Amino acid sequence: MYALRLPLSNLSLFCSQSQKPRLDSNYRTMMNYAKAASSQAFKNKKLLFRQLFEKDSSTYTYLLADVAHPDKPALLIDPVDKTVDRDLSLVKELGLKLIYAINTHVHADHVTGTGLIKTKVPSVKSIISKASKSKADLLIEAGDKIHFGDLFLEVRATPGHTLGCVTYVTGDGSDQPQPRMAFTGDALLIRGCGRTDFQGGSAHQLYQSVHSQIFSLPKETLIYPAHDYRGFTVSTVGEEMQYNPRLTKDEEMFKSIMENLNLPYPKMIDIAVPSNMVCGLQDLSVKPVDASSN
Amino acid sequence: MYALRLPLSNLSLFCSQSQKPRLDSNYRTMMNYAKAASSQAFKNKKLLFRQLFEKDSSTYTYLLADVAHPDKPALLIDPVDKTVDRDLSLVKELGLKLIYAINTHVHADHVTGTGLIKTKVPSVKSIISKASKSKADLLIEAGDKIHFGDLFLEVRATPGHTLGCVTYVTGDGSDQPQPRMAFTGDALLIRGCGRTDFQGGSAHQLYQSVHSQIFSLPKETLIYPAHDYRGFTVSTVGEEMQYNPRLTKDEEMFKSIMENLNLPYPKMIDIAVPSNMVCGLQDLSVKPVDASSN
Repeated sequence: MYALRLPLSNLSLFCSQSQKPRLDSNYRTMMNYAKAASSQAFKNKKLLFRQLFEKDSSTYTYLLADVAHPDKPALLIDPVDKTVDRDLSLVKELGLKLIYAINTHVHADHVTGTGLIKTKVPSVKSIISKASKSKADLLIEAGDKIHFGDLFLEVRATPGHTLGCVTYVTGDGSDQPQPRMAFTGDALLIRGCGRTDFQGGSAHQLYQSVHSQIFSLPKETLIYPAHDYRGFTVSTVGEEMQYNPRLTKDEEMFKSIMENLNLPYPKMIDIAVPSNMVCGLQDLSVKPVDASSN
Repeated sequence: MYALRLPLSNLSLFCSQSQKPRLDSNYRTMMNYAKAASSQAFKNKKLLFRQLFEKDSSTYTYLLADVAHPDKPALLIDPVDKTVDRDLSLVKELGLKLIYAINTHVHADHVTGTGLIKTKVPSVKSIISKASKSKADLLIEAGDKIHFGDLFLEVRATPGHTLGCVTYVTGDGSDQPQPRMAFTGDALLIRGCGRTDFQGGSAHQLYQSVHSQIFSLPKETLIYPAHDYRGFTVSTVGEEMQYNPRLTKDEEMFKSIMENLNLPYPKMIDIAVPSNMVCGLQDLSVKPVDASSN
């Protein structure tokens, strides 16, 4: 029902043979749109969106749901182990059906909540990129679409912070939320970006990723990163193209900045990375890591 | 140009004699609306909205601006002294003209940024409720409207956490953002509420305020509080009416809960309250209080 792995080139959403079960609901939606006096209002009402914050690691978790769909299917992007109960309570209170727990990459600063979520809601499927070389129920690649109800996220490969980083972008289409929203993980932060000195990081790759995959989106696209340390909650592509202190530079200058950050060794990395490599299939016999002890 | 103190009963926004300078721009806006194929999309594009977080006191500051207006007039709700430079940088980068720095009440847990903002941008006017007995450039009362461009906030008296607490609600009208947004200060928090044992607090008053002034708004109204301690960023009237663990109770039960919270003495109150009582007109000869030392 919630199809995955459609290449981006398959833009004919209503003609895909692999999506037969969705045709009726898409047809119904189209008819509703035609009837609606204000289609834009109708459209915006479909997406329920919540930004959630985990203070210790300054991580943002995002809840998205299609509340116009009878099932109210929902997904969580970058859940944190410590806040899983909060997130699942909210999902329950809002009457949503959580179907996916998704990571933008293998985090080094906190333990993902995907494993814990699956122990509490076994029907949830975990998702991470194939390039991350991690275990999960579904391994995605650039061009895949992650459908939840009549909405979807498009997968863009944005390596450089880690080898397997991806950015999830809400769908491109008149029946999808406007403006589009990009969940950039650590590839692009608000007025910053993730470090490039661990986990297969590469300043050259990150520069190319951000410019080709994120800055190529419409300027009004909303940027929702995995972290913010100064209290910002959102930015836009246009703002980062104009004001990001690192990514407005040329590539040589960017590489020089990234090579001279002199950041300390990530304090959680030795615990978080091995755990997050099995984010979707955390072994229940292994005691969950308590991130608060670090 | 940015009229204040229109009573709520003056609902005829386009007929007010006191608003003559605004008629042309309202007329222009109406004509644009008539031309726009998707009026809802056009409307939502008028409001620029940013939620900003101050981690030490878990305070939310809100930036609102009418970006369809040539001046891009903006206001800040509940700015914090420590994050004034961040907020003013953002205002500048976004090309906004900050006209008001507003408090929902006299805060006891952090020092307001309104005084510092006025030293850096002298044209900004500070606003707080008359009932707070504080000093500010403009003292507002229930029923007043605070205009910024073609948008406005409506003032609702919501005492109970303090005697002078107000809630600011975005305008009621087809030319104002939908759904409406309520900036509730400490009167209503997400799944909680402010304490009632200091600063003229009253559990009876708070209960009445929330039920009569906030829960009477449409259920889809977005709730943006002054604080959140668990990482939530937004709620709705409908959600709080259904799930707020305190305010879903009857008044007697609510009073009993509030009387038995056994909270410690607020650690910042002796510094923050005297300072915040002169929020809008902070004496420049007085050294600004460094909240980080507490």
